[in-house]
Amino acid sequence: MKHYRKELWFEIPARRGFVNITPQVDECLRESGVREGLVLVNAMHITASVFINDDERGLHQDYERWLERLAPHEPVSSYRHNDTGEDNADAHLKRQVMGRGVVVAVTGGALDFGPWERVFYGEFDGRRRKRVLVKIIGE
Amino acid sequence: MKHYRKELWFEIPARRGFVNITPQVDECLRESGVREGLVLVNAMHITASVFINDDERGLHQDYERWLERLAPHEPVSSYRHNDTGEDNADAHLKRQVMGRGVVVAVTGGALDFGPWERVFYGEFDGRRRKRVLVKIIGE
Amino acid sequence: MKHYRKELWFEIPARRGFVNITPQVDECLRESGVREGLVLVNAMHITASVFINDDERGLHQDYERWLERLAPHEPVSSYRHNDTGEDNADAHLKRQVMGRGVVVAVTGGALDFGPWERVFYGEFDGRRRKRVLVKIIGE
Repeated sequence: MKHYRKELWFEIPARRGFVNITPQVDECLRESGVREGLVLVNAMHITASVFINDDERGLHQDYERWLERLAPHEPVSSYRHNDTGEDNADAHLKRQVMGRGVVVAVTGGALDFGPWERVFYGEFDGRRRKRVLVKIIGE
Repeated sequence: MKHYRKELWFEIPARRGFVNITPQVDECLRESGVREGLVLVNAMHITASVFINDDERGLHQDYERWLERLAPHEPVSSYRHNDTGEDNADAHLKRQVMGRGVVVAVTGGALDFGPWERVFYGEFDGRRRKRVLVKIIGE
Repeated sequence: MKHYRKELWFEIPARRGFVNITPQVDECLRESGVREGLVLVNAMHITASVFINDDERGLHQDYERWLERLAPHEPVSSYRHNDTGEDNADAHLKRQVMGRGVVVAVTGGALDFGPWERVFYGEFDGRRRKRVLVKIIGE
């Protein structure tokens, strides 16, 4: 069994944002030499997500507005987590909706994706350096 | 390490619907010959889900009503994704709540499930042919 | 390829609750002898979750309140699933938001976690014995 590990680093300049990280995951897969197996891609921080959806700007605006409706940032004082001095309780909730990470099949040395599947880093508490883990196992 | 891959095809006659695909996943596992390992089952389309829950008709009605409340289809014009000419922005949101896919343990050649766990295909933008990927690795 | 399987049992005294199960998952990993691979941890019941987030009491209160807002327990009669005699339809919905389970990388014999990642059992229909599955594959 082969195995491979890499950390990807991001610093999103705003509180929230979405980044297409498919090229980096593709590059990891190439480096790993794995032809058949599984790729795990997950946020290593609990106020961020890795998810798979469409690389379409309007959709990302819809996600932003929708997540703010489901778990609004303000009022900060409405969350007990923020009593600790944080202001990011909403980010912990938003990340649960979008998910911590994804598992993707590797077939013939490529990510086994449908036509529109792309991997995204979803940031909900940005403006600092944060990490995504890529772990690949297979042969 | 053994590996196995199959695509399952679906065409749901309505916009939304849930299909129990446990028998097809069981059949894939039998074909694979894997006794110990992991099965990944995921929608290859970004307006559909694969999830695990109960095969109970009333619950599926509850999911339908609840997802419509969290991310309503109408008004179509309220979503920026739909400015592209699509009318399925809500489907991209609903799919995030229900998830892209599941990873299931394989033990002794069977899906390692609790008593009520069943795998479902969840369609949120149907009336066309769409695919689910089954990838199995193990020995 | 090595493989390992264990069931963890829980009986939460209230309807809902969160338990940090990271020490038990760590212990499973030690027992497995796996150094490089993947751990799957999932609820075997469809009214419970396994998820990764922060071990912070205020955040858990926020999750509790937020999930009750997204999928309220009462009125029980508002759910078609509860027509079967159950009163736990809301638990099936809450579990979809928080997820069925997680896949975690194993690197150098340890759970490959960011600084604040902890694994939780999330109970939404407690007061009875329920199970979590830990499955580890790797080498």
